[in-house]
Amino acid sequence: MDDKLVINFTPTGMIPTKSMTPYVPVSVSEIVEDVHKACELGITMVHLHARDPISGEPTHEKEIYGEIIEGIRKHAPYLVICVSLSGRNVKKLELRADPLMLEGPLKPDFGSLTLSSLNFNQTASINSPSMVQDLAALMKEKGIVPELEVFDIGMINYSKYLERKGLIKSPYYFNLLLGNIACAQADILHTGVMIRDIPEDSIYSLAGIGNQQLKMNSLAIAIGAGVRVGLEDNIWFDTSRTKLATNIGLLERIHTIAKANDREIMTPQEFRLKMKLEPGNGKYGRKAS
Amino acid sequence: MDDKLVINFTPTGMIPTKSMTPYVPVSVSEIVEDVHKACELGITMVHLHARDPISGEPTHEKEIYGEIIEGIRKHAPYLVICVSLSGRNVKKLELRADPLMLEGPLKPDFGSLTLSSLNFNQTASINSPSMVQDLAALMKEKGIVPELEVFDIGMINYSKYLERKGLIKSPYYFNLLLGNIACAQADILHTGVMIRDIPEDSIYSLAGIGNQQLKMNSLAIAIGAGVRVGLEDNIWFDTSRTKLATNIGLLERIHTIAKANDREIMTPQEFRLKMKLEPGNGKYGRKAS
Repeated sequence: MDDKLVINFTPTGMIPTKSMTPYVPVSVSEIVEDVHKACELGITMVHLHARDPISGEPTHEKEIYGEIIEGIRKHAPYLVICVSLSGRNVKKLELRADPLMLEGPLKPDFGSLTLSSLNFNQTASINSPSMVQDLAALMKEKGIVPELEVFDIGMINYSKYLERKGLIKSPYYFNLLLGNIACAQADILHTGVMIRDIPEDSIYSLAGIGNQQLKMNSLAIAIGAGVRVGLEDNIWFDTSRTKLATNIGLLERIHTIAKANDREIMTPQEFRLKMKLEPGNGKYGRKAS
Repeated sequence: MDDKLVINFTPTGMIPTKSMTPYVPVSVSEIVEDVHKACELGITMVHLHARDPISGEPTHEKEIYGEIIEGIRKHAPYLVICVSLSGRNVKKLELRADPLMLEGPLKPDFGSLTLSSLNFNQTASINSPSMVQDLAALMKEKGIVPELEVFDIGMINYSKYLERKGLIKSPYYFNLLLGNIACAQADILHTGVMIRDIPEDSIYSLAGIGNQQLKMNSLAIAIGAGVRVGLEDNIWFDTSRTKLATNIGLLERIHTIAKANDREIMTPQEFRLKMKLEPGNGKYGRKAS
């Protein structure tokens, strides 16, 4: 990997609510504001989850994603944007794929693609083989790049199968998410096996769930990988859980560690070149192949 | 692990049909006959899947499991018997758990417990956290031991969580199943990480899916682990897939490799002692704790 640090910012997620932490951005304007602040500080990409404006519950609706993207790009036209295609709350392909229907200036660069079914702490997350393949095919058709989400080592093998089927094409971007209870742990050997298994022509970030976020981010900075960081994965600033985190506080800490490690932040434009994305500022995603 | 070789015989499974191979035992009498032959040759335990007598499709019905168990125990009263609690075809707890309702001389020693949701080649296999916990709790109540089925490294972590919750109790028996497309591969590093992660007080067998069966079984014999072997995981005898396997042919090959490696087969009685099971011959499972 390049020595520059990819920061994949995850401000909201599916789980945090205002009652859990007042700092989680939920409304369109809150999310846009946190992303703008993050851009001023320095990030490479953002991984978005939209919320329903009335209930605050996660929503798949492209209209809300569109509003967030429009707001972000008004001041950050180069930022690389990923939309969530999570199946936690909606099961049907048409619903999960709704944010992929955004076009032109609202088109996302990436869509998240979890590579298998798995268990979270409380629930099963169902991503059947046909769902994974259908989402990949649709992204290929639309020229939107899959953000390959890996929770255990076998999911990397499945990405190689998708490549053999012609459904995904390098260069790849992976999130390696460590520390879910029934998945790979925030353990150096689990992480090392994953990194060995990733296709050579890939960029990847390390994420840690809950208390494991800082550990995995810091490990990533040390070894030349990218980081996925934000309130989506962890609402606490300290591991003893006495202080609630803010998105900007988490990002500032990453910048401090990165600076001390002599790692510059990769700009969105630099990331666009490496990922063979359109240049931003009006053109997004990857040319359909 | 003990130097003696655990052979966990898997004659039938969910997938093979008579049109795929005439050698797969499907009816009660066919399964009983293959298990009896296997016992004469030497096995430690059997992992049973029942089939509907009319359709040949997998069934969860305890009546059919009961007939198979009765037939097996007529000539092999000490053999350790595991029933499948697979959720591939039935979703509800009461249906999946039906074979656990067998009692007295028909009581199984083990019930299979897959520790997370995962993807097989064509389908998602859903084992939600509550389903896994409910099955474990029911087995604990009944004094039936979970056969802990692991398809990727994170599932071992989940077994440790079940232990902390008091739902399972050592000594443990694990099947490590390598080579499913979206799970850990039949790779020495994947296997090594799993073995490192398993609780110390455990017995484990290695299984390989399809062409990986011989490789993983042979690796297991080399390193002192057990083997899971039979037509459930692999219907071919050779990796070029020119010759259909028979259950007895697969077992004979294991015996040949074991003998050359100076590894004796662990008897059911020896396995019962190690796993703190009832002595067999009329008393089965583990005393409820």
